[in-house]
Amino acid sequence: MPNNTLPMPATQATTLPPTPHLMIPGPTPLPESVRLAMGRPGIGHRSPEFGQVLERVYPALQTVFGTTQPVFVFTASGTAAMEAAMVNTLNRGDAVLVLVCGVFSGRWATMATKLGMAVDTITVPPGEANTLTSLQHALANKPNHYKAVVLTHSETSTGVLNDIEPMLAAISGYGALSMVDAVTSMGATPFPVDTWGADLVMSGSQKGFMMPPGLSFLSVSQNAWAAYERCDYPGLYFDFGAYKKAQDAFSTPYTPATHLYMALDEALQIMLTEGMPNVWARHRGLRNTIRQGATQLGLELLVSDDHHASDAVTSIKAPTHMDVPTIRAGLKNTHGIVVANGQKELKDTIIRIGHLGYQTQREATMVLSALQQVLTP
Amino acid sequence: MPNNTLPMPATQATTLPPTPHLMIPGPTPLPESVRLAMGRPGIGHRSPEFGQVLERVYPALQTVFGTTQPVFVFTASGTAAMEAAMVNTLNRGDAVLVLVCGVFSGRWATMATKLGMAVDTITVPPGEANTLTSLQHALANKPNHYKAVVLTHSETSTGVLNDIEPMLAAISGYGALSMVDAVTSMGATPFPVDTWGADLVMSGSQKGFMMPPGLSFLSVSQNAWAAYERCDYPGLYFDFGAYKKAQDAFSTPYTPATHLYMALDEALQIMLTEGMPNVWARHRGLRNTIRQGATQLGLELLVSDDHHASDAVTSIKAPTHMDVPTIRAGLKNTHGIVVANGQKELKDTIIRIGHLGYQTQREATMVLSALQQVLTP
Repeated sequence: MPNNTLPMPATQATTLPPTPHLMIPGPTPLPESVRLAMGRPGIGHRSPEFGQVLERVYPALQTVFGTTQPVFVFTASGTAAMEAAMVNTLNRGDAVLVLVCGVFSGRWATMATKLGMAVDTITVPPGEANTLTSLQHALANKPNHYKAVVLTHSETSTGVLNDIEPMLAAISGYGALSMVDAVTSMGATPFPVDTWGADLVMSGSQKGFMMPPGLSFLSVSQNAWAAYERCDYPGLYFDFGAYKKAQDAFSTPYTPATHLYMALDEALQIMLTEGMPNVWARHRGLRNTIRQGATQLGLELLVSDDHHASDAVTSIKAPTHMDVPTIRAGLKNTHGIVVANGQKELKDTIIRIGHLGYQTQREATMVLSALQQVLTP
Repeated sequence: MPNNTLPMPATQATTLPPTPHLMIPGPTPLPESVRLAMGRPGIGHRSPEFGQVLERVYPALQTVFGTTQPVFVFTASGTAAMEAAMVNTLNRGDAVLVLVCGVFSGRWATMATKLGMAVDTITVPPGEANTLTSLQHALANKPNHYKAVVLTHSETSTGVLNDIEPMLAAISGYGALSMVDAVTSMGATPFPVDTWGADLVMSGSQKGFMMPPGLSFLSVSQNAWAAYERCDYPGLYFDFGAYKKAQDAFSTPYTPATHLYMALDEALQIMLTEGMPNVWARHRGLRNTIRQGATQLGLELLVSDDHHASDAVTSIKAPTHMDVPTIRAGLKNTHGIVVANGQKELKDTIIRIGHLGYQTQREATMVLSALQQVLTP
């Protein structure tokens, strides 16, 4: 039973349904200026006007990533950016270690195997974080064996935040390339790519960047570039060389999704105006409010440990008296708030509240109040 | 010197610059409803609301392509769709014949070579069309040799329309797969994919579909599917199997560019409401008006033969008294009309007027009047 610490009036029936508010772990709500940028007239992708968009976007992405290395922009999803990282730096047969802690990190193991890599995995149960000790153990067991180690910063399917800074140091010391899924962490959680020494870091537009899906981002270190030069990848669309050459000239190698770039330009300006330390603090505050509120409502968090709790998405276990579909339907139909369920074995066990991108404390308290009303019999 | 058949008042200087109107061969201008769809709020890509978009979009694309086979939608450019066609149906070392008649068909030869195929090309000078005779000759010379033949319907860099119907019959009779670049022809020129027996046909969103770039389309015949099942392509993001499975369930395998799909939904409704025969007739009318008008202005067309002139883009040679940059600057700065120059060896030789997508007779006469004024000393 919910533990009501505040008296809460019962919801009155209304006939005007509210505009849906997304609190899934991406896509996120969109700021007005981002939506207006999406609705602009057609623009030539080789025009000076579009070149000016690229001149702003490329360095702003480097600021968010905390890197002086190039951050490539692909017209494609985050899955494509991870595939691009692998095919541009690894050859068939190369040994890869994948740290698995959920659906998305599991996908990277599947992908590496399909691409012909020799894949080892270290898997923890969903809701738990990968550990430095098990990584160190695996690396020590097979010296000079792995060409790359794949990590997930914030696992979108569980809301686990892996403590990747010491892991990146271990991988770097071992001499392997690090490939980091920062899809839901970049722009929500501090991840200074150069300082932490990460080689290939990927993210997606519909997450901390508070814009629609369709673009993905990939930072490429000098070590990763050296691996690219030894790699026999034959493809064109994701070829690093083509992106590097175009990016140096503030262009794109193939026809870009122009309107998504213009939306990205607006979103990056909003983020950098707020200031990245403030952006990160806002996400941490939203995480804390939602975790504390859920606990006060008598609910159990999937990730019990604050240190490993994502700043982007919080997984809450369904209580015994109400199942996941009923909670989601109540939130959506009565309150117009869309939250996610779990994936695979967690499908009917948890709800996932996304609090990344264009979200404020108002939305955090809104979803908690709505959740309280839905849970009250 | 222009041959003025109508008296034309001199342009008066104005201080309010006109909104740029795109008459390049893609991206094209956007209808209002397409722009408004782009500016909608965020939407979950696994929501029932987005599923309804896919339920409309997939069959409507089949109607435009004239096929009962699946038309896959990639969040990626047309280049990616061509790469997807090759990697999903061919193995390294397979022999491929590429008919080259310009920059884009040249790119397909480069791509096939980079992907490890054994590539032969038949190349005609830019502005000329590939011939059935040379294709038949090449096929007869090497029986049972080629696994695929790559054709271009409308070559964007020159404005040539290849007469592909008999070529497709020849390829089919030979037993090879046909791969057709229909980037600027689909939605502008009749191309009944099933009737003509084309195996892999690709197009892009920013062309006849009058929406922003970022999506590409690829129809896959049963023969192409059989080739896929014999192919050892290891990638994930462009894997036909994943798209087929998702499409059958009105879903997408990876996170789609939601707002581009919503724009596509609007654009397809506009196209099917106009009716495809009317859409094609409109493009043919625009082509005829611009070709006749240019000739009346005393200008020479790059493609002299009406039968091989694209319905999407018309290349006009610069007259001796004015160079390409001056013409383009005059059209853009005084009239707010953006046309393209040539590419590679045609860079400073031709202007290319795009008349595909959201264009009407009003725009055809507008660009001709503006051109007449620019050319008048």
